[in-house]
Amino acid sequence: MTEPRTDEQALAASVVRGMLERDAFSRWLGIDVLAIAPGRCTARMTVRPEMVNGFGVAHGGVAYALADSALAFASNTNGRVTVAIENNIGYPTAVHPGNVLTAEAVEVSAANRVAFYAVTVRNEAGVTVADFRGTVYRTGQHHELRDPQS
Amino acid sequence: MTEPRTDEQALAASVVRGMLERDAFSRWLGIDVLAIAPGRCTARMTVRPEMVNGFGVAHGGVAYALADSALAFASNTNGRVTVAIENNIGYPTAVHPGNVLTAEAVEVSAANRVAFYAVTVRNEAGVTVADFRGTVYRTGQHHELRDPQS
Amino acid sequence: MTEPRTDEQALAASVVRGMLERDAFSRWLGIDVLAIAPGRCTARMTVRPEMVNGFGVAHGGVAYALADSALAFASNTNGRVTVAIENNIGYPTAVHPGNVLTAEAVEVSAANRVAFYAVTVRNEAGVTVADFRGTVYRTGQHHELRDPQS
Amino acid sequence: MTEPRTDEQALAASVVRGMLERDAFSRWLGIDVLAIAPGRCTARMTVRPEMVNGFGVAHGGVAYALADSALAFASNTNGRVTVAIENNIGYPTAVHPGNVLTAEAVEVSAANRVAFYAVTVRNEAGVTVADFRGTVYRTGQHHELRDPQS
Repeated sequence: MTEPRTDEQALAASVVRGMLERDAFSRWLGIDVLAIAPGRCTARMTVRPEMVNGFGVAHGGVAYALADSALAFASNTNGRVTVAIENNIGYPTAVHPGNVLTAEAVEVSAANRVAFYAVTVRNEAGVTVADFRGTVYRTGQHHELRDPQS
Repeated sequence: MTEPRTDEQALAASVVRGMLERDAFSRWLGIDVLAIAPGRCTARMTVRPEMVNGFGVAHGGVAYALADSALAFASNTNGRVTVAIENNIGYPTAVHPGNVLTAEAVEVSAANRVAFYAVTVRNEAGVTVADFRGTVYRTGQHHELRDPQS
Repeated sequence: MTEPRTDEQALAASVVRGMLERDAFSRWLGIDVLAIAPGRCTARMTVRPEMVNGFGVAHGGVAYALADSALAFASNTNGRVTVAIENNIGYPTAVHPGNVLTAEAVEVSAANRVAFYAVTVRNEAGVTVADFRGTVYRTGQHHELRDPQS
Repeated sequence: MTEPRTDEQALAASVVRGMLERDAFSRWLGIDVLAIAPGRCTARMTVRPEMVNGFGVAHGGVAYALADSALAFASNTNGRVTVAIENNIGYPTAVHPGNVLTAEAVEVSAANRVAFYAVTVRNEAGVTVADFRGTVYRTGQHHELRDPQS
């Protein structure tokens, strides 16, 4: 994760650090957060053999979960507790065990309560394997921050 | 799984049995297939503590994966190898560890190549926790069946 | 439109009557509201030759607009000003000029701020031509009602 | 529309010209095609007073229809008859009569039968008013071209 350079960046990094500590499912998936910035997240994971479906390719839930985690991290960077309400995902290319998937989540637009994100998941060859879009709801609650600079 | 009563039902059950054997991710999730019929599937799982996200509730990928598995089973029942191309999901209610989720997948409409499914995921109180819709592509390939009657 | 029988029903009918008066695009489309109830709307229109696309079949925006109008009416029936934030639509069957389309919008689930609706559009043979789902945001504003009992 | 420079460009322009001639609904909307290239389309329209909904803002079907037209043009540029099967749209910002909307459709990824497009609709201030994604099916039929160079 890049070092905080501004207050906004420090807040973003602190929020995501706190979320990651509790996020058992992202840990099982092996998700690494590569970069965090206000409204943005890049996350990576490697597909393991226990993640295949009945066709021997990666279960659709795997690329989805990576994208959904990247969405959760990106959309909470402003410190408001924010939850996904509606997501959609297209699957242009199959994913295989051993593939390294990188998700890039970017805020498309945001109002006070509702915001829209695009998340693109690519394999190690740079081919898009999932094209995901998330709509999130920003609650009135704020993340509790223990020490944003640490 | 209910016993086969007709050729279509026998085919449906045989296809899903074959898919389940290879579906390592559905096994990790603890998915049980309760009922299979042509174009339909009911599947159940219990949410475990290792399935939570950064807020301590079930990761959005969990209900999604259950719905996607139910979609895969329901949409392959006719013996054609069928894959999801675009799914969307709404999250009306949060899911907690210990919740028992039941997904019901139903074919909404089907043409030669493209078919549409609705999947509703409810918790043990009957409350809808995920409202999922899947669009699938039916390839020209057929499932290899070893012994459809067994 | 069925007669009001309760306060909720009277409110629903009054809100939709007010919306319809201003809804110039629904009027151009020729949309008739057949039934209104809390969280529900049935609306109908006939596809005209000026509604075709470059293939001579109904433009995808036509069935979408009918579904979106039914969603708007159904989701405002409780008197809160409510707007669509994310919709999705699947097109199982082509629509032709002369087809009579009926949309049924039903509330799937509702929380304080966000609610989910399913809208099914069928042709006069009862075949589903569009399977639509809408996510709406309920603002804090209320509809101004001139005379809910009239 | 820019002049054809290559065979692919000439094909794209010819296909869209043929589609536009028959597309009565796009004409009613006042859609102008500003640019066409293989897998891409830019289209523009001005929102008129008869396009409002019950809140006096542009009906959701208007930005949707503009995006769907841009999708149709972009996805048919390769000469195969291609139809939308599933679209989704998010509405970050309301649209008002008098607004000039520009839709940019871009191919995200394409396989033999199924392709994915992103369409962004912006107002004259460059603000995104609709974020649309389309999944299309490429049939085996080809567009009939009378004279691709004309």
